[in-house]
Amino acid sequence: MTEDFLMSPLPVIAITLGEPAGIGPEIALKAAWKLRHDVYPVLIGDSLLLEKLAPDIDPEIKLHHATREDIPHIRSLCHPGTLVIIDRPLAQPVKPGYPDPASATAILSWLDIAIEGTIKKHFDAIATAPVQKSTINAAGIAFTGHTEYLAEKLQADQVVMLLAGHIDSPTGLKSGSLRVALATTHLPLKDIPDAITQASLMRTLRILHQELQEKFRILQPRILVSGLNPHAGENGYLGMEEIEIITPVIQSLQQQGMKIEGPFPADTLFLPHYLDQADCFFVMYHDQGLPVLKYATFGHGVNVTLGLPVIRTSVDHGTALDIAVQGTGRADDGSMIEAIRLAADMVSR
Amino acid sequence: MTEDFLMSPLPVIAITLGEPAGIGPEIALKAAWKLRHDVYPVLIGDSLLLEKLAPDIDPEIKLHHATREDIPHIRSLCHPGTLVIIDRPLAQPVKPGYPDPASATAILSWLDIAIEGTIKKHFDAIATAPVQKSTINAAGIAFTGHTEYLAEKLQADQVVMLLAGHIDSPTGLKSGSLRVALATTHLPLKDIPDAITQASLMRTLRILHQELQEKFRILQPRILVSGLNPHAGENGYLGMEEIEIITPVIQSLQQQGMKIEGPFPADTLFLPHYLDQADCFFVMYHDQGLPVLKYATFGHGVNVTLGLPVIRTSVDHGTALDIAVQGTGRADDGSMIEAIRLAADMVSR
Repeated sequence: MTEDFLMSPLPVIAITLGEPAGIGPEIALKAAWKLRHDVYPVLIGDSLLLEKLAPDIDPEIKLHHATREDIPHIRSLCHPGTLVIIDRPLAQPVKPGYPDPASATAILSWLDIAIEGTIKKHFDAIATAPVQKSTINAAGIAFTGHTEYLAEKLQADQVVMLLAGHIDSPTGLKSGSLRVALATTHLPLKDIPDAITQASLMRTLRILHQELQEKFRILQPRILVSGLNPHAGENGYLGMEEIEIITPVIQSLQQQGMKIEGPFPADTLFLPHYLDQADCFFVMYHDQGLPVLKYATFGHGVNVTLGLPVIRTSVDHGTALDIAVQGTGRADDGSMIEAIRLAADMVSR
Repeated sequence: MTEDFLMSPLPVIAITLGEPAGIGPEIALKAAWKLRHDVYPVLIGDSLLLEKLAPDIDPEIKLHHATREDIPHIRSLCHPGTLVIIDRPLAQPVKPGYPDPASATAILSWLDIAIEGTIKKHFDAIATAPVQKSTINAAGIAFTGHTEYLAEKLQADQVVMLLAGHIDSPTGLKSGSLRVALATTHLPLKDIPDAITQASLMRTLRILHQELQEKFRILQPRILVSGLNPHAGENGYLGMEEIEIITPVIQSLQQQGMKIEGPFPADTLFLPHYLDQADCFFVMYHDQGLPVLKYATFGHGVNVTLGLPVIRTSVDHGTALDIAVQGTGRADDGSMIEAIRLAADMVSR
């Protein structure tokens, strides 16, 4: 490891292609190519698919083919400017825009290869292109998402979804990273109140606090917490969860020395006064925090899974089948680039 | 009326002071003063309170005192640069930062004067500074908010809350008005799913469509609708309301020729592609749409109540008792200025 490290000072980032009929392969290849001097990108997927895409992205692209057997010495194959692809072929070629359940096994293998290689420290981090849940489910494999899959494989009791992105504040008051973590993720709205308990909040906030310290190197992270209800419940007029659940958890964590504050009304939480103070916002559910994050970062946010024994980042968007069907060259790789960059940053910290 | 109109070409805007212990009186007076050549501001409140504030805002301010009896000929008292105040005194002076239930009757009278004068067309529109619901409730008067109070007084079956603000898009793709209307307003999160029915959505969207045409003069308004659940339910994986409730309503209104589209995932609804297309976004609940609106407008949004027989705008923030307690001069009148401006624009349309 030490010797490898001396040979390869750049972080090795495993990049999975995601749904092959979506924009995943294109954005993974484009982003890896653009960042080839900043990281050692190791693409994991179907090499024929990438060879077919490459000329339309840049005729200069050369792919260095490798196999699973090469993984233990992958660092020796990595050189600045080189793209390595670990080949694990699809069952059959895909037509862009038309997901095929026959791809499901390969898609999951790509993930498994990335996970295994990262656990064994051959890769330093994982950045994933988007998958199409329905493709995998249609193949008869229960799958609710990347995050849940990683959590299960890596036996993580609880993971936390954090979205991050760079913002330029037109007021000039604050430019930098906007980070939004979620208390709950992909739940129907009606199921959210029951999912928010003192125990779940406590667990999630502890993971968030610890990971901000360890993976983001923020020594004393300041976390601002939203309420569940509009106006953070307005002293109980608009709901009791703030009084009964959220406030006691915040007070308890404050007593342990954490700089966690709230609950604040979500609608005014992203005003400059708070943006200036917060290292991270913690909101109660998906649509309370992600519209503002995606607006502010123009869809170039990064999804980070906290609570795993590995570093994993992802794009903050879907497979965009409607764009893939139009042919190579139209997909925006902005979020993928940021996902790889953030993974690399987290490694170097 | 015609004669009055010839004498006073600027719109007469009734401006209520809201909670006297909050920042309402200060922002109302500051905004009225700044806009005194653009509209005829008629402040409605306690004139002693305003006389006390005025020197700290601008020693030049002169208030033209009037009474309720002057309202039928109010236009003859309005001249460019003049601030008219219709005096209806508080029961006792207030201490900034400390709301007093003894103020409740006066606060509501201010509203009543504004409503009556506007219905009788002596005023052209109402712009309200924020009230503190608890002050009024503590006085034994049931009160859930301005919007609800106006709806009841004006016998409006259903009103729609719309927030609007100016945005400068750093992409340069879109600058202009961001408008977000709500299907539900001040409800605990757990009560939202039951409040969203086909009938309620149909009614609310019809009012919104009609008011965008009539009050905003958008001939064929294009309204983009969010889903209720994350990812707009993801084809039923994350909730059924999109399939069972929202989509049928949208289809029905489309068949009537309205340009209403969706349901779209809320988290990606405010990306440039949609911002460019939409005259108005319609979201299912408060915290799904207002964080992004307030972020994008830096807290200078305006709250407009649609479905009333009068034009009524308001600030998009609360009474800010914490700022009022620090003394005059600290409150940001940006939202109040925009509220008066938008009211004037809507009159002139």
